Amino acid sequence: MVIHMEKGTSEYGEFRIEGRNAVIEAFRSGREIDKVYILDGCKDGPVMTVKREAAKKNTQIKYVTKERLDQLSESGRHQGVIACLAAYSYARVEDMLALAEKKKEPPFLILLDNIEDPHNLGAIIRTANLAGAHGVIIPKNRAVGLTAAVARTSAGALNYTPVAKVTNLVRTIEELKEKGLWFVCADMDGTRMYDLNLTGPIGLVVGSEGEGVGRLVKENCDMTAAIPMKGDIDSLNASVAAGVLAYEILRQRLM
Amino acid sequence: MVIHMEKGTSEYGEFRIEGRNAVIEAFRSGREIDKVYILDGCKDGPVMTVKREAAKKNTQIKYVTKERLDQLSESGRHQGVIACLAAYSYARVEDMLALAEKKKEPPFLILLDNIEDPHNLGAIIRTANLAGAHGVIIPKNRAVGLTAAVARTSAGALNYTPVAKVTNLVRTIEELKEKGLWFVCADMDGTRMYDLNLTGPIGLVVGSEGEGVGRLVKENCDMTAAIPMKGDIDSLNASVAAGVLAYEILRQRLM
Repeated sequence: MVIHMEKGTSEYGEFRIEGRNAVIEAFRSGREIDKVYILDGCKDGPVMTVKREAAKKNTQIKYVTKERLDQLSESGRHQGVIACLAAYSYARVEDMLALAEKKKEPPFLILLDNIEDPHNLGAIIRTANLAGAHGVIIPKNRAVGLTAAVARTSAGALNYTPVAKVTNLVRTIEELKEKGLWFVCADMDGTRMYDLNLTGPIGLVVGSEGEGVGRLVKENCDMTAAIPMKGDIDSLNASVAAGVLAYEILRQRLM
Repeated sequence: MVIHMEKGTSEYGEFRIEGRNAVIEAFRSGREIDKVYILDGCKDGPVMTVKREAAKKNTQIKYVTKERLDQLSESGRHQGVIACLAAYSYARVEDMLALAEKKKEPPFLILLDNIEDPHNLGAIIRTANLAGAHGVIIPKNRAVGLTAAVARTSAGALNYTPVAKVTNLVRTIEELKEKGLWFVCADMDGTRMYDLNLTGPIGLVVGSEGEGVGRLVKENCDMTAAIPMKGDIDSLNASVAAGVLAYEILRQRLM
């Protein structure tokens, strides 16, 4: 992830959340927020909500100019509000299994191979949260990290859904298999997703749009699931594909 | 849509497709391409494919510098390849119904209300193509048009899936109801989507993430469909929500 060092204000790395709704969500989820920058003179509804949330938590507010906000902004879309948090910490895979156990649900994890677009990663974390997945696992190499753009497009889901970064996706799959998980790999040549039993403890592996899931990772999966394709082009957007598959898992679990 | 006028080369408006895969898809779909700009000296696989496709179709190739491509590019992500097409023309709603009739399928249209993000629109056109929808309808006002960014994120789907722009979404819905279509509106307070019958001639209405579907449009729909939400945050990304709902319609049609 990107750590911003601010000269003169703090020695440690800061993580920033940008945009009104993302900041409100961060407050409401109970995250520790060090400081909020707000556009001086801005008084519309969502900004007033940010101020109220900050007052409730005794969070320092700094009123700054648009130029200062633009300078602080990584995404370029701060909407007049930037919150500084202690750096996001990645979760451990064990935390996700513990979360599933606490909820008395069979584990449901989403593993991403080669997802390089921050908007796709953010949207998938959001989907994971709403489809009832217990966490998202990304590989250390060749993946985008938890940048401000990812946090923003996750629309607050990063505050609830744990994300782990692992050195070797294949080894993680092997370890999770020992704990009883089955792995299903998204693949257009796979079995039609409706014809698979996806109700047990499961890891859903989704790859990038260009390359799909890597060969070694795919070989280590128990099943391959295909989304029906009625059209002319090759593939869905990666976050849409992940959404359709995650919701097929949820549908089977609910039925 | 954005029309680029090139001084000295042509009198009429040009539409550009940017990025390797988008250009390859445009060739393969049989679209008329006037000219391709390719980064001089670039010889990697996808670019060689572009050259072969251009040779097959007798399309003019211009080898240019990176600076010239950057200057021509609207999206800023040309990947060394920009194709110039005659301007995209919007389809008519009647063409979509004719397409459904030709395929001997009950009509399936996707209507978008207030989708302002070009990446969402592109991803939804892509989803429409693969989920077997016969067209996408957007309102003239308050919607993004078919820009280069939309074409690029549609990954070629714009060449196959008709997109119509209408003056008044409510009036279009009324007219289509007279032709036998039922309208289902995406709404988190609606009926769980699995519990609705979505198999007939249908129009799926999806709104923006912030505002959802407008009140008047919603009131004119026959049903409201909710995606189950197991998580903590408010909503899915608009293109993911459209994908999950479109695939629920396809699932019911296939079962």
